[in-house]
Amino acid sequence: MADNGVLPVDKLTISETVKEAEFSQRVLVRSILGRPDGGAGLAGQTLKVGGWVKKGREQGKGSFAFLELNDGSCTANLQLIIYSDVAPLGQFTPTGTSLHVEGVLQMPPADKQGKQSIELKVSKVLDVGAADPAKYPLPKTRLTLEFLRDYVHLRPRTNTISAIARIRNALAYATHTFFQKHGFLYVHTPIITTSDCEGAGEMFQVTTLINDSEKLEKELLKNPPPSQEDVDAARAAVKEKGGIVAKLKSDKADKSAITVAVAELTKAKETLSKIEERFNQKPGIPKKDGKVDYSQDFFARQAFLTVSGQLQVETFACALSSVYTFGPTFRAEHSHTSRHLAEFWMVEPEIAFADIEDDMKCAEAYVRFMCQWLLDNCLDDMEFIAEKFDEHAINRLKMVASTNFVRLTYTEAVTILEEAVSKGHQFENKVEWGIDLASEHEKYLTETKFESPVIVYNYPKGIKAFYMKVNPDNKTVAAMDVLVPKVGELIGGSQREENYEVIKERILEMGLPLEPYEWYLDLRRYGTVKHSGFGLGFERMILFATGIDNIRDVIPFPRFPGRADL
Amino acid sequence: MADNGVLPVDKLTISETVKEAEFSQRVLVRSILGRPDGGAGLAGQTLKVGGWVKKGREQGKGSFAFLELNDGSCTANLQLIIYSDVAPLGQFTPTGTSLHVEGVLQMPPADKQGKQSIELKVSKVLDVGAADPAKYPLPKTRLTLEFLRDYVHLRPRTNTISAIARIRNALAYATHTFFQKHGFLYVHTPIITTSDCEGAGEMFQVTTLINDSEKLEKELLKNPPPSQEDVDAARAAVKEKGGIVAKLKSDKADKSAITVAVAELTKAKETLSKIEERFNQKPGIPKKDGKVDYSQDFFARQAFLTVSGQLQVETFACALSSVYTFGPTFRAEHSHTSRHLAEFWMVEPEIAFADIEDDMKCAEAYVRFMCQWLLDNCLDDMEFIAEKFDEHAINRLKMVASTNFVRLTYTEAVTILEEAVSKGHQFENKVEWGIDLASEHEKYLTETKFESPVIVYNYPKGIKAFYMKVNPDNKTVAAMDVLVPKVGELIGGSQREENYEVIKERILEMGLPLEPYEWYLDLRRYGTVKHSGFGLGFERMILFATGIDNIRDVIPFPRFPGRADL
Repeated sequence: MADNGVLPVDKLTISETVKEAEFSQRVLVRSILGRPDGGAGLAGQTLKVGGWVKKGREQGKGSFAFLELNDGSCTANLQLIIYSDVAPLGQFTPTGTSLHVEGVLQMPPADKQGKQSIELKVSKVLDVGAADPAKYPLPKTRLTLEFLRDYVHLRPRTNTISAIARIRNALAYATHTFFQKHGFLYVHTPIITTSDCEGAGEMFQVTTLINDSEKLEKELLKNPPPSQEDVDAARAAVKEKGGIVAKLKSDKADKSAITVAVAELTKAKETLSKIEERFNQKPGIPKKDGKVDYSQDFFARQAFLTVSGQLQVETFACALSSVYTFGPTFRAEHSHTSRHLAEFWMVEPEIAFADIEDDMKCAEAYVRFMCQWLLDNCLDDMEFIAEKFDEHAINRLKMVASTNFVRLTYTEAVTILEEAVSKGHQFENKVEWGIDLASEHEKYLTETKFESPVIVYNYPKGIKAFYMKVNPDNKTVAAMDVLVPKVGELIGGSQREENYEVIKERILEMGLPLEPYEWYLDLRRYGTVKHSGFGLGFERMILFATGIDNIRDVIPFPRFPGRADL
Repeated sequence: MADNGVLPVDKLTISETVKEAEFSQRVLVRSILGRPDGGAGLAGQTLKVGGWVKKGREQGKGSFAFLELNDGSCTANLQLIIYSDVAPLGQFTPTGTSLHVEGVLQMPPADKQGKQSIELKVSKVLDVGAADPAKYPLPKTRLTLEFLRDYVHLRPRTNTISAIARIRNALAYATHTFFQKHGFLYVHTPIITTSDCEGAGEMFQVTTLINDSEKLEKELLKNPPPSQEDVDAARAAVKEKGGIVAKLKSDKADKSAITVAVAELTKAKETLSKIEERFNQKPGIPKKDGKVDYSQDFFARQAFLTVSGQLQVETFACALSSVYTFGPTFRAEHSHTSRHLAEFWMVEPEIAFADIEDDMKCAEAYVRFMCQWLLDNCLDDMEFIAEKFDEHAINRLKMVASTNFVRLTYTEAVTILEEAVSKGHQFENKVEWGIDLASEHEKYLTETKFESPVIVYNYPKGIKAFYMKVNPDNKTVAAMDVLVPKVGELIGGSQREENYEVIKERILEMGLPLEPYEWYLDLRRYGTVKHSGFGLGFERMILFATGIDNIRDVIPFPRFPGRADL
């Protein structure tokens, strides 16, 4: 049994029985077909299965039908055979029909056993959900991934998207298992953030202002605001009632008469205040001194969707030592490429008492662990994907799982790239010390030069973020990128600058204001520690593993400019 | 060893060595003090530790100091003893100081062994991070949880918040482990959604419109837009150039002359179009027909933060059978209670071929699994919390882990409540068939009547959501709530209505538009299946486990009206 307790295909022990899924009335197809004997040892068992028909055909002049049933638990379909005396067959054959049936597992006839190791002879139909072939949007003809993007709610029913979903699930659980095994604590960093970390340009704003202003607008249409005359009249009333009170007091009038007059004055004042409040309500986003007045927004300040949990998770690393975050992050970039999403998931570990060496060690161990995990737990899905999309996918996983990553400094990397240029290799982007490595440079290193994962570290200070540890040379920072074949940069990380004076200087150098970083500086002011961390783009890892080209196909609900279905 | 691979306190095997953490240069304090022998068997070992000083005091006329070091791996502190010949002692004693040291584990003197089973005699100080006691915001005096909410970036260094963080981590991993064990696939439902499911009132809006309009405003200040005269002049120029072309053509002029004139006309038209575009740019949120023009927003439509992943995860359940989502959800409610957050985490499983019975079974098994997990993996943290906040916390976990949940229909529950009323029990809210159970009713059932977790099911149709399965009585729906002592409702779930006609009717009945639900209806149009699911508020589970009163203390970065630090 694998670490996660789920029986991986090819590793099931052969028993004579099969367990019903605990919280649904059926046996998972995986627990039949995933056995080393392909389910043959279960012949004779009566059981229930549920799923969707991939292909169906009537045979024997309509006396029986073969149905390929898939329940999403594995790539393989279970073959059902159903005779017309059980139920009329026509309703079962259209692709997309759902079925919940009871039957007996049996060996198919000897001449058919090459294809099927076991089939279910249906004795009872418990439930059918029709799928009108004239209307069902996903007929059995070969559909492109691009076409499927218009049907995010139905595409999980296709072999490719469901295999990717299982691989994604496996990588997520591998992630948690890896970090928990090493004593890291999972921390939920905030999604809504008021730390506008690297300039608001690419952040989504989270607000209730527009909604509030629309509500107000509607309200003002329904109950028109008071006019200037109404306000003047209310003011005059207050003045008048005030006069009366003053008069009564100066006349030393009867106490009860004064009380009555004061009560009337109070009432007039209240009326005035209400009228003034409504008079001052203006439709539209509230403004103050020409700027949006965020004091009226939900959080009483401007709020955004996070672009990274790193800075916040550092507060936990500087208290609990080894932590990680795994959650959604956001960029409001107008990128229409096959590599960018507006909403994507990141894994970000952060380790106290760890330097850049420890950081690289952790990154390498984590990536290799994930590759091995897929080989151990998702081989059938990987085989399907390899056959359909990328014949090298499995070898790539094996290679990465078993290879020590090449490590070289940025300076060494630039020298290698310059050598390549001098030998005639053409890059679109100029190579010289100080540039940020372009995708083509990264791919050259990992795919051409080393044919292996490569970690490049110690980058020029000028091209990296303020929080990275300045090296003793004062020219480079202790940053590192993990490059892998197929996708290039998979991980970016660094040792963090833990020296208060140095990091403060760096913030100012970059023209950033200090105030929003005071809390971050506190981590260096009080009990500062050496610490390091990195971020892995989770979808990039899936692209790397599967060889799928477009990032929109490896996340369940892709968000990008102009598109956010469901 | 526990399922998660991390050695739980009290379950470490006693060996004579202790392993250094793999990606940081130290031994976790947990792996010393968490041994059954409290670390005694490690006496004589040389090793490194890192952490923060909880308490420090100089003794022996300044010849040595005792330091209580905590590294966040467990509640317990490791006692360090450091002599003045190693380093000047004054720098180490302030609370909050960080230390990375090497030393030898030794048994404390016989008369001190009651308190400490082992201590580390420091031989070398590798790193110190000072914490000026005059400025450090978290001195060692007893701090209230309320006070700590103003220091979310430092509060993980306190015993209580770090214990809660470890409990939260354990519950998160328990969640993944439970569902993976049962073959559920983890699905990342979207955070940004365009499905405005139950009325936009309580949803946060995600937008780039305000930012874009502010950019435009700045731009217009820098480069004032053209005036009406500029536009008129540009129009006149087009007319003039057009006239010239027409004239030349009608005169059958020289071809090259016409070409030149046409080129000038084209240029004039381009200039006009640019001027008109800038002339039409208006500062402020773009509007069309009096409404906000969302076609200009990032996703070309109005977008929100999700309030639940349920509807979206159903698309995967209706393809992959058993799935769950675990992610952040949001409510823009102006609730200032100790039970509400604007950002919180939800666990939402969804199971195909499962009815309300299966759903209740799954909910019960999941909650009991989590309780047992905490007892097995977090007992030291639970003991700390129980001592400090809620003496019943551990017994509550034990009780829930080992008790079959009481099940009763809503109708039975109302009868019980009515009986209580007739016997003189006072409720603030009236009890009668048809009401939504109030918190006081739920607490009466679980805390007073049964003193056990209770599942109430089959609620009146009128008080529940449109997607819940209508029972044959046509009065109730197959909904269920799990109620537990201390917090009341912990889980809400239901069998989903899978019948196309019925659910369509229900949507219309509730006055909702059909169009936004077309994708959801598709799940019932094509291959519909019986399916069920539920949602567990993750922070509520932590409140239940720990007995902590305020939900703002059990999430790392609480978000509520007027507040979103960091």
